[in-house]
Amino acid sequence: MSIIVQKFGGTSVASPEKIKAVAEKVAKFASNGNKIVVVVSAMSGETNKLIKLAEKMMRSPEPREMDSIVSTGEQVTSGLTALALINLGIKAKSYAGHQVKILTNKSHTKARIENIDSKLIKKDLNNGYVVVVAGFQGSDIEGNITTLGRGGSDTTAVALAAALKAEECQIYTDVDGIYTTDPRMVPEAKKLDSITFEEMLEMASLGSKVLQTRAVEFAGKYKVKLRVLSSFHTSGEGTIITFEDKKNMEEPIVSGIAFIKDEAELSLLGIPDMPGIAYQILGPVAEANIDVDMIIQNIGTDGLTDFTFTVHQNDMDKTLNILNKKVKQHVKAREINSDNKIAKLSIVGVGMRSNVGVASKMFRTLAEEGINISTISTSEIKISVILEEKSLKKAVTSLHKAFNLADA
Amino acid sequence: MSIIVQKFGGTSVASPEKIKAVAEKVAKFASNGNKIVVVVSAMSGETNKLIKLAEKMMRSPEPREMDSIVSTGEQVTSGLTALALINLGIKAKSYAGHQVKILTNKSHTKARIENIDSKLIKKDLNNGYVVVVAGFQGSDIEGNITTLGRGGSDTTAVALAAALKAEECQIYTDVDGIYTTDPRMVPEAKKLDSITFEEMLEMASLGSKVLQTRAVEFAGKYKVKLRVLSSFHTSGEGTIITFEDKKNMEEPIVSGIAFIKDEAELSLLGIPDMPGIAYQILGPVAEANIDVDMIIQNIGTDGLTDFTFTVHQNDMDKTLNILNKKVKQHVKAREINSDNKIAKLSIVGVGMRSNVGVASKMFRTLAEEGINISTISTSEIKISVILEEKSLKKAVTSLHKAFNLADA
Repeated sequence: MSIIVQKFGGTSVASPEKIKAVAEKVAKFASNGNKIVVVVSAMSGETNKLIKLAEKMMRSPEPREMDSIVSTGEQVTSGLTALALINLGIKAKSYAGHQVKILTNKSHTKARIENIDSKLIKKDLNNGYVVVVAGFQGSDIEGNITTLGRGGSDTTAVALAAALKAEECQIYTDVDGIYTTDPRMVPEAKKLDSITFEEMLEMASLGSKVLQTRAVEFAGKYKVKLRVLSSFHTSGEGTIITFEDKKNMEEPIVSGIAFIKDEAELSLLGIPDMPGIAYQILGPVAEANIDVDMIIQNIGTDGLTDFTFTVHQNDMDKTLNILNKKVKQHVKAREINSDNKIAKLSIVGVGMRSNVGVASKMFRTLAEEGINISTISTSEIKISVILEEKSLKKAVTSLHKAFNLADA
Repeated sequence: MSIIVQKFGGTSVASPEKIKAVAEKVAKFASNGNKIVVVVSAMSGETNKLIKLAEKMMRSPEPREMDSIVSTGEQVTSGLTALALINLGIKAKSYAGHQVKILTNKSHTKARIENIDSKLIKKDLNNGYVVVVAGFQGSDIEGNITTLGRGGSDTTAVALAAALKAEECQIYTDVDGIYTTDPRMVPEAKKLDSITFEEMLEMASLGSKVLQTRAVEFAGKYKVKLRVLSSFHTSGEGTIITFEDKKNMEEPIVSGIAFIKDEAELSLLGIPDMPGIAYQILGPVAEANIDVDMIIQNIGTDGLTDFTFTVHQNDMDKTLNILNKKVKQHVKAREINSDNKIAKLSIVGVGMRSNVGVASKMFRTLAEEGINISTISTSEIKISVILEEKSLKKAVTSLHKAFNLADA
């Protein structure tokens, strides 16, 4: 009997009726003799409702209290899901994160899982229970309730799958798998039957919102077999995330196009091109707990260079403030620019490793469409560019066509 | 610096604005140099909303899951209250019951507090924090979340006051104190400045809904000074619940009239008048975790007697079922009757101890109004009668007048 972890997101448990449908899906798996651990998010809208309540109390709610308040959303759903299962004659039990216990560090609102005590869950599974765990949450060493940040329920599911050595971690979503790009932007987008872990990691971190990056990283680290499926359709195998490279050289070079619209770009112009300069800039930013995404520094001329990085839009003002107060004078920057009307677009594919000309094809396509690129950054299996947000749709559509992704 | 526990019920924290008003009240006390522990209920309506959600999942929700779901209401309010305090520049921290930790037995949905670990709270108080505790909840020895039953936040407050050896436990409510009877029924009802612990216990258990019986019992057991105050008026000393007998013999004999409408009466007629019969009847009822209130057995004739007891209206059908299935044949009852259209009325006063004629005055008054009494039961400081629910208002009004309570 293998253990399967099944995660259902907010839209899958958005109403009592939907929770009952989830319970029926789970019950079917359980009756096939599987040991099931279910991870649930808060009912869609509930987390925002709680955040808004907290923000009515004070402008930037104190994170410890925020976590305690917001974590109740998943606790309610986990209890309701257990009840729906019991109602179907299935033995079921719910746990909040701190009950499991899922130990995290102390970074409230974006805590990281340090350890999972799987004793209670294993005991329940062996006693024939379906165990329902509240996603997105844990508690620190002192028992303070913590949350893992938005999308953290995916991380909970993968971490539980790793701790329990589960056969598979199934992420149920409102899409039926991973697509070559967002079908809402490009109607020709095609579902992929499989995607490699590395590709998924690039896709996830680039805004293909199906899976949270951290969850994918976790899955990679602990070799958890991940599958993305639809909550609403009973058929379909979804998309499996594999750990093997694609063997068939005939497979498409580019697997997908990801994009993200909620970043902001910051540039420091005319700074000295010398060792340690990157740390002098990004150290204070990291200290303020601001996540930096892209970092680009070009070769300098006359001992001077430019330094560009991107952060989440919401962090732009805070970052700009830090740069002006703590960095500008120190690194003798001539000028600091910022822009939040940008989008980041990336083409992703393990095939790029063995195929030349992908980059040039990409840039040619964008040029032919008259789209200007401000920044370029590449990895082994990805090429990312930053462009004006208003050009994004044209860029994605033309690249999807240029790389024949509709026939993937 | 003395420790004061302040409890705010559901109507006092019913909206973000009301929570802010509570925070301002607390902040004023804190700035006077008191160490404050605040206990809060769920926002009014929230508990019912959660119960309804659970009941959509299954008809009689499994109690362990119910507790985990329902306890989130108070957890949210405690976090919001802490935020509102922090917003006023007060150091504050919230705790769910399991975090404190408030250890209870395993009786889900009506758990009893076994122990309170006050270490964390004391440490925070000494560090200048106002500590906000989610009322109504705790956890059992295995870490399962439990709730104390309706009104359990009062019990949480008193139990915390006892554990912390608090100077006073202040219960803020939507009334400004304890009245001679319910002012909604008798407009002449008068607020009492003080009431003895024993009187309050009788009043509370008899449906004067200001304080939960269990909380008053707890206060008596641990000699916690209780005060009932209004959340909404800033002035007024409320009603203090004292441990001394009234010294002044001139004080009124009857302190108040309490009543309760949500009970049901069950009678077993023609049962053998022999030792152990009460246990044979009530044993199976207790096993089903049904609370029994009044118990009346009269002297038998011809070896046969009648046995009457009352339970909560909601438990009537369940109790009747138990009596018919497990008790009737066994005790050879001729007939079992039940009635939920009844009310229980009691006059309460420590003065009764030293004053004769209170009972006869009560019965004469009711007789003059043509009110029929089905059952009578007395204690040292209380006389209770059961009458038809439709006669209740007339009975309370006439007794309030007969005992001059408006001039108390």
